[in-house]
Amino acid sequence: MRDLAELVITTDEFIRTEVIAIDDKHDGDIELAGGDDLRLRLQAAARDLGIFAPHGPTEFGGLGLNMEERAPVFEAAGHSLFGPVALNINAPDEGNVHMLDHAASEDQRHRFLAPLVRGEVRSAFAMTEPAPGAGSDPSALLTRATKVDGGWLVNGRKWFITGADGADFFVVMARTSGDPGDGGGATMFLATAQSPGIEVLRHIGTVDRSMLGGHCEMTFTDVFVADADVLGGVDEGFRYAQVRLGPARMTHVMRWLGAAVRAHQVAVGHVAGRQAFGSRLADLGMMQQQIADNEIDLAATRALLLEACRELDGGGRASQATSIAKTFAAEALDRVVDRATQMCGGLGVSRDLPVAKIAREIRPFRIYDGPSEVHRWSISRRAVRAITAAQAGGAG
Amino acid sequence: MRDLAELVITTDEFIRTEVIAIDDKHDGDIELAGGDDLRLRLQAAARDLGIFAPHGPTEFGGLGLNMEERAPVFEAAGHSLFGPVALNINAPDEGNVHMLDHAASEDQRHRFLAPLVRGEVRSAFAMTEPAPGAGSDPSALLTRATKVDGGWLVNGRKWFITGADGADFFVVMARTSGDPGDGGGATMFLATAQSPGIEVLRHIGTVDRSMLGGHCEMTFTDVFVADADVLGGVDEGFRYAQVRLGPARMTHVMRWLGAAVRAHQVAVGHVAGRQAFGSRLADLGMMQQQIADNEIDLAATRALLLEACRELDGGGRASQATSIAKTFAAEALDRVVDRATQMCGGLGVSRDLPVAKIAREIRPFRIYDGPSEVHRWSISRRAVRAITAAQAGGAG
Amino acid sequence: MRDLAELVITTDEFIRTEVIAIDDKHDGDIELAGGDDLRLRLQAAARDLGIFAPHGPTEFGGLGLNMEERAPVFEAAGHSLFGPVALNINAPDEGNVHMLDHAASEDQRHRFLAPLVRGEVRSAFAMTEPAPGAGSDPSALLTRATKVDGGWLVNGRKWFITGADGADFFVVMARTSGDPGDGGGATMFLATAQSPGIEVLRHIGTVDRSMLGGHCEMTFTDVFVADADVLGGVDEGFRYAQVRLGPARMTHVMRWLGAAVRAHQVAVGHVAGRQAFGSRLADLGMMQQQIADNEIDLAATRALLLEACRELDGGGRASQATSIAKTFAAEALDRVVDRATQMCGGLGVSRDLPVAKIAREIRPFRIYDGPSEVHRWSISRRAVRAITAAQAGGAG
Amino acid sequence: MRDLAELVITTDEFIRTEVIAIDDKHDGDIELAGGDDLRLRLQAAARDLGIFAPHGPTEFGGLGLNMEERAPVFEAAGHSLFGPVALNINAPDEGNVHMLDHAASEDQRHRFLAPLVRGEVRSAFAMTEPAPGAGSDPSALLTRATKVDGGWLVNGRKWFITGADGADFFVVMARTSGDPGDGGGATMFLATAQSPGIEVLRHIGTVDRSMLGGHCEMTFTDVFVADADVLGGVDEGFRYAQVRLGPARMTHVMRWLGAAVRAHQVAVGHVAGRQAFGSRLADLGMMQQQIADNEIDLAATRALLLEACRELDGGGRASQATSIAKTFAAEALDRVVDRATQMCGGLGVSRDLPVAKIAREIRPFRIYDGPSEVHRWSISRRAVRAITAAQAGGAG
Repeated sequence: MRDLAELVITTDEFIRTEVIAIDDKHDGDIELAGGDDLRLRLQAAARDLGIFAPHGPTEFGGLGLNMEERAPVFEAAGHSLFGPVALNINAPDEGNVHMLDHAASEDQRHRFLAPLVRGEVRSAFAMTEPAPGAGSDPSALLTRATKVDGGWLVNGRKWFITGADGADFFVVMARTSGDPGDGGGATMFLATAQSPGIEVLRHIGTVDRSMLGGHCEMTFTDVFVADADVLGGVDEGFRYAQVRLGPARMTHVMRWLGAAVRAHQVAVGHVAGRQAFGSRLADLGMMQQQIADNEIDLAATRALLLEACRELDGGGRASQATSIAKTFAAEALDRVVDRATQMCGGLGVSRDLPVAKIAREIRPFRIYDGPSEVHRWSISRRAVRAITAAQAGGAG
Repeated sequence: MRDLAELVITTDEFIRTEVIAIDDKHDGDIELAGGDDLRLRLQAAARDLGIFAPHGPTEFGGLGLNMEERAPVFEAAGHSLFGPVALNINAPDEGNVHMLDHAASEDQRHRFLAPLVRGEVRSAFAMTEPAPGAGSDPSALLTRATKVDGGWLVNGRKWFITGADGADFFVVMARTSGDPGDGGGATMFLATAQSPGIEVLRHIGTVDRSMLGGHCEMTFTDVFVADADVLGGVDEGFRYAQVRLGPARMTHVMRWLGAAVRAHQVAVGHVAGRQAFGSRLADLGMMQQQIADNEIDLAATRALLLEACRELDGGGRASQATSIAKTFAAEALDRVVDRATQMCGGLGVSRDLPVAKIAREIRPFRIYDGPSEVHRWSISRRAVRAITAAQAGGAG
Repeated sequence: MRDLAELVITTDEFIRTEVIAIDDKHDGDIELAGGDDLRLRLQAAARDLGIFAPHGPTEFGGLGLNMEERAPVFEAAGHSLFGPVALNINAPDEGNVHMLDHAASEDQRHRFLAPLVRGEVRSAFAMTEPAPGAGSDPSALLTRATKVDGGWLVNGRKWFITGADGADFFVVMARTSGDPGDGGGATMFLATAQSPGIEVLRHIGTVDRSMLGGHCEMTFTDVFVADADVLGGVDEGFRYAQVRLGPARMTHVMRWLGAAVRAHQVAVGHVAGRQAFGSRLADLGMMQQQIADNEIDLAATRALLLEACRELDGGGRASQATSIAKTFAAEALDRVVDRATQMCGGLGVSRDLPVAKIAREIRPFRIYDGPSEVHRWSISRRAVRAITAAQAGGAG
Repeated sequence: MRDLAELVITTDEFIRTEVIAIDDKHDGDIELAGGDDLRLRLQAAARDLGIFAPHGPTEFGGLGLNMEERAPVFEAAGHSLFGPVALNINAPDEGNVHMLDHAASEDQRHRFLAPLVRGEVRSAFAMTEPAPGAGSDPSALLTRATKVDGGWLVNGRKWFITGADGADFFVVMARTSGDPGDGGGATMFLATAQSPGIEVLRHIGTVDRSMLGGHCEMTFTDVFVADADVLGGVDEGFRYAQVRLGPARMTHVMRWLGAAVRAHQVAVGHVAGRQAFGSRLADLGMMQQQIADNEIDLAATRALLLEACRELDGGGRASQATSIAKTFAAEALDRVVDRATQMCGGLGVSRDLPVAKIAREIRPFRIYDGPSEVHRWSISRRAVRAITAAQAGGAG
């Protein structure tokens, strides 16, 4: 693996010189900008520079970075909304690489993981369901897989499935025991897009437009998955979802951190170059307060992110640390971009600057991957358990 | 004039039964929804119901409501983004009616005000300029009018001119004495759209899409305005701008209050109809907190608005009261819609519900009509003057 | 009744010239400043000026102001922590006057209400109990009254009973039917301090020190209350408590508004008189932001307060309006004083200025008279009921 | 040096078993609790346990911890307001140890540093002056030292000098060149308390009461300091002040972090043990939100603190990192304690729980050691410089 600092610099230059202009020109709309054609072109360029798939296993051509090392690279990529696609580190593929690397059989590694790391295919992760199914509360899972000869039949409806349109395969989460609300067991299935019975119904018209393949609503109707395509153990799905979620939250933070940094830099450049009321805007106290608050929010996001990454790299589940870092980051980065908007005045809500676009893309992060409310509920429950246990044990 | 409560009810029903569906269908994009054709159709319907032009002078067919009476009517209209257009109370026409009613000559009243109140024409208010011209700091005004025989020649560049595309006439603010930064004098000119030398260059691509005629960049090149079309006195423009701004801020608040109320109601309906973690969402404490905070923000907005309206109706300038109400409202309503977004989860950032659309439309209000920072600067200066004067006089 | 504006001015002058110095000298500690002796001296001075008991029924010498009229008078009195005592409008006496005026028999009016309005006696309102009794949740009421011949025997423990030490009589709330948690019925009893079985155990050491008689813990042991001293109907206590609570919340807001205004004025005076970094502090943007935010919070508090007062004066229960105004005010005024502290720098946390003292006194208002959390819970429930009912009825 | 984890555990147990009860009994008032007698008793106990002076140079009996290692030890000590005194790591002595270790001559190390590390003497740092002297703006320094034969004569007035009453020596900052406002040069002088001309005028009555020796106002009148007692180079004082300030900010954060953690733990214990509205308080959503927000604020404080400590340990000045960590921490910890107050209801503002006491002690940290406003001003200026330089260099 090449030197990390050099990797960050190369990534940063690549994004600034080859990616950002495309992103800005198309207002961050990846379909308008070229969709998969653009992806292939940018990925080829990244491959040439040796910065492609920094997270991927080295056996398949990735750079094998651990979580702490990914942080600055993903942040640099995130300066453009299209940067993560260019490096093949975008959701949901990046999280699927992580999960497959953890749970796939040797055969599955070659059929699914290898082409995914190499950027030859795209994937999606089909977990979330419309109400009253699995949303914030995974135990409500309604999609069901029934055992049949040689495999399983999967039936259910999913939505907000990122990247579904154009995905080559799906990781589908389906109930294999128990009833909705009771917990029970879920299992992960690997299903190619050609499998009969998979239908992508529509793109849900979300405000963000930089995710290749959109956020889709889809149905699985008697979709046959062979036993060999069960990912990991039967009824182990909830556990694997957790394995995926912690790191996936952190890589989201890394990418959105990069986007927010760009908005902040654009805004600072704006106020440093304009006068009003006889002063440079950047020297007015209310601007300085917003700049300082942005610096604080960015630094705190980065600090919490790195703490959680180190815990993950050390082998921990880091449930509390990743929940805290994700919740703080989603809200802090939204504040950063909101202040950047305000600093840019009328241009901040226009396409003349990239800030409004970043604001639109980043807002859903407070909802996607667990709304702040659900994370706070988990954080509180863990804290109460830990503190009351310590107090019962004599501390306090 | 008919009874106010009845007027509010009729407006509310009209909006809900005839306007909202069009708005939702076209995601609040008024050009897509039909532009001026839609406007004429909706205005005809409102006229039939007797709720048209509630703010207009009765001599031209308006209902002659004062500011306090307008508040609930405009709020009801604001439930749809297209409601204010339907009642002919949208910016900038509504504020122009107010200013013309105050400053126009008898002849100008008939040529400009009357058709504007009747919805026969649209108008725009051309004040804001690109940096380093007049933005938050009006004294920086660069557009200049030079006296010539029988009139004036206006030259300058303007932007963020709401409704400019398709406007039948412009109220143009131009410097007639002094230099940028020194204050000096500005004058208001009435110029029909056909006047040679007026060019609408482009729609600035702002995030909001419900304003008929967009927010445009435009140039005035040797535009001749006859002496008879000077609005009010020469060099009195800054004063008239103030006359316009106070009430215009308040009617903005009324309309956006209606939009925020709708987002809140949609969100409450959403959480009242869904279950998670064994409970109705609306009964979960973190949802209750957001609902209560919305109720508080809406109530405080309404209370501040009404206080300022009463002061305006009593003949006061109400500079401090309208600055406070505008600043609080812009931020509070943005918070309300942000909480509504969060309450709706993934649907809150999608087109499946109208909340995301309202969020997009309402955000710029913290910048348009004076950014919060500039209002706070004014509010503080007035407060320091008042308090130090009282302390010097013995109080304190 | 004299002219309201004049009453406000007289009150303001009286507070500034005769009360504030005593308050500042003793750091707002009313016991140190003289306790009931001070009260009698100040009340005599207020009586001489004709500003005494502005809320009291005129038949007993009060000025008979309605809620809206009280607002500016109570605010002016609140500029000093001892001002409300001086005018005899402090909690809990002021709220007890209101409740007795509403519910007392003719005989009770003369024995209890008249001397209370005249300042001849002090009273307390004994409702709150230690856990698991009646706190935020009144239905948990544990204190019980048992019917005996000619009256009732009251048994229970109360705490946070404001003004208990030195009170001449108590309004005691006790359960007369049902069980804790089930609701059932409570009754209000009037018990003189000399009644055998009443014991004031201790002053709870709260951070605030301006309440005459402190916040006490006390027990009622077989306290006999004659039938003639039942206040209103048996089992009607919960309803009367509501009658008391709405207006009592608003008069709290009025008084604390006055205190926060003083902190704000002191802070503005401070930053207007000092230089740093080559500028008057009051002209630095971060100071201007805090000054403006204070102005906004004060204006919004006043506007919400007046709306609720008008609703109460119109005969409404105003449950939602008073909950909203109380919750907003308690938090807004705390913010105002916190900003004032920050504006004064090191002096803001010292006794050299009155700001730290006001901060200490005002903080508990976010907890007393219903913590913000409980008010938000009520506000949300009412909102959900109202909005879902309207939606079921076709609106929305 | 002993194992760090063990050191933390021993410290934690010591604080919980031997220090906290004394602190709680005297409401955190260190003079009431015994003043210097208490200090000597607690320090002897800490010495016996081998946890004394963890920051001190090992040559004088300290444990020689670097900044990152200090963090968990100081946090554990901070659980009690008297813990830092017990370990001899309280302000201002702890910061003076750091500065003397950096700048003292060999002779000064033995006369001043050694007894300070051993707890034989106390010290103070005399920098801050009343307006218009050195406060937030050090360049305003008014106290002046004039060269005389064999030494210097120091004249000036200082205030908010922590620990001055009872200090055995002072580090005094005085102007030795230039004029107030122009910058120029300052020098640090070491002056024993017995030096003629040093007078401690009064304790400023600040809200906090846990600092031994108070925050005092004092005068220096023709105080003679021998050349041998100049600390470091003449005119190097501003630079040394910076050397002291960065680490001193971080150790403040460590100690206050411990105090806030205790308030949080007490509050969680409170809500975990009480019922209302048919539920354990700790299971109500609005409580969970406050618990989660506390966990987030505490984690972010710790993460920012450790990042800054690592930068300092690496030899950096860490000006931006320590400013950011200090500003965030002061505000976050204040929020934590405020939420803890709210969670405890009426008890939260009483002496029955330690939360109110901690709230009172922690509030000034947003002002002491640089108010948040001044830190934000510095943070913004550094950010604007860095970002505009990068943009000029082609990035952005």
